[in-house]
Amino acid sequence: MPATRLTDFSKLCLHTITTKPWDIETAIAKYAAAKVSGITVWRQWLEDRDHNKVGNTIREAGLKTVSLCRGGFFPAKEQKNRQIAIDDNKRAIDEAAAIYAPHVVLVCGAVPGQALDESRKQILDGIAACLDHARAANVKLAIEPLHPMYAADRSAVNTLKQANDMCSRLDDPYVGVAVDVYHLWWDPGLKKEIIRCGKAGKLLAFHICDWRTPTVDMLNDRGLMGEGCINIRQIRGWVEQTGFNGFNEVEIFSNRWWAADQDMFISEIKRAYLQCS
Amino acid sequence: MPATRLTDFSKLCLHTITTKPWDIETAIAKYAAAKVSGITVWRQWLEDRDHNKVGNTIREAGLKTVSLCRGGFFPAKEQKNRQIAIDDNKRAIDEAAAIYAPHVVLVCGAVPGQALDESRKQILDGIAACLDHARAANVKLAIEPLHPMYAADRSAVNTLKQANDMCSRLDDPYVGVAVDVYHLWWDPGLKKEIIRCGKAGKLLAFHICDWRTPTVDMLNDRGLMGEGCINIRQIRGWVEQTGFNGFNEVEIFSNRWWAADQDMFISEIKRAYLQCS
Repeated sequence: MPATRLTDFSKLCLHTITTKPWDIETAIAKYAAAKVSGITVWRQWLEDRDHNKVGNTIREAGLKTVSLCRGGFFPAKEQKNRQIAIDDNKRAIDEAAAIYAPHVVLVCGAVPGQALDESRKQILDGIAACLDHARAANVKLAIEPLHPMYAADRSAVNTLKQANDMCSRLDDPYVGVAVDVYHLWWDPGLKKEIIRCGKAGKLLAFHICDWRTPTVDMLNDRGLMGEGCINIRQIRGWVEQTGFNGFNEVEIFSNRWWAADQDMFISEIKRAYLQCS
Repeated sequence: MPATRLTDFSKLCLHTITTKPWDIETAIAKYAAAKVSGITVWRQWLEDRDHNKVGNTIREAGLKTVSLCRGGFFPAKEQKNRQIAIDDNKRAIDEAAAIYAPHVVLVCGAVPGQALDESRKQILDGIAACLDHARAANVKLAIEPLHPMYAADRSAVNTLKQANDMCSRLDDPYVGVAVDVYHLWWDPGLKKEIIRCGKAGKLLAFHICDWRTPTVDMLNDRGLMGEGCINIRQIRGWVEQTGFNGFNEVEIFSNRWWAADQDMFISEIKRAYLQCS
């Protein structure tokens, strides 16, 4: 059963990278003016900023901080570099706490040429090494499976089943998953795995956009909802049937949309959110 | 256990599309001169040719016809167009028989915006409608799962498990699968599913190339073996452990290599075949 149609913006969240031309202050002001309800902050937007001040600015604007993007990138050939990644993830946890984000989304990482099984082991070890820090900060870690076309260099976690299996292995209340329709829509096992993580209380975040045909850039040619072939409303239905009551986060990397007027883009996002999500 | 190193070219097959600048007569002559053992013929190479004459030229050159590429593309919104696809697949079967190819490789198809489940059902129906024709011609059909990045428009069959499940559903000796490392290397279930189809006698073809980082074109930027991150030798080991005794088919779509001198490319393929496959 597909989800019922969205009729308001109370669950609409935008990722700062969706409106890449805007700095954090502009994004907060523009999102609030557009009656967007939530914001997911990418770490680059916090550079050279007082993190806690950003968090308070978000609150004062009436927005909710939904996530911090992104931690992860744990695998590396040398132990020294794996430790650098762990230390950086701890800093991401601190940043999330400062801006009142309940979790950090993890793009888990991969090393071209290193066996995926080895990378997966390093990812598990890396997350495990961050858990005490996460617990102390009361910030969860959300494993985001990435599309298999990113397996070589961005993430060795490529299906929701793998992410759920990792959660089971780690068995910690501070670890969950993020479901992004762009990465997972093709997977015949998706519904089953959404139910699995939802029932386990592990479904922390839900990201939406669309898959364009043809896709002309493997990174930055995502579509606005309705511009592609993803059954977004059906997947949202599966997510909501588990009891998920979080935000629908619009995360669009698009050279095309970044080149457009960003106020107009926000209007288009709001229209597409109601019509096609 | 990885496969043992290849020491000769007795199992080396090239796809005509790998050396795209060459027509069929040139490809046959060049492959034979280079001591390549097998040839997989793409249908475009048979246009305006007497098919049986091509088959005999291949034999007389001392080559073996390994496969015909490619049938499939069964899904369509209208029944009329699904029937056109079935008729075309029957012609592909006839072409395979004419050139002494034991099977046709199927790129199963997808329709942007049509539910993948519906496309999968249409694929099953389409293959089933071709089976009498395949049996009469003694030509098998090899379902090739394609990478999930092609799910929108090229194939709704994106894992070997799905292809194996389809074989189980169809339960016919004239249906099997083709394993291509480019499409499947990332899948944590790959070894298990290779063993499954191998033991069932359903593993009909094995294709090799490599995954480059970055991949700059989703269709035509495949790597020569060794240029990327795929664990080709390990996957070949899994394939051979099932008793597979067929060819290692080099199938490289590459704007870069197509622009190079093709005689030099064949030399590079032979070097990479021994060193990196």
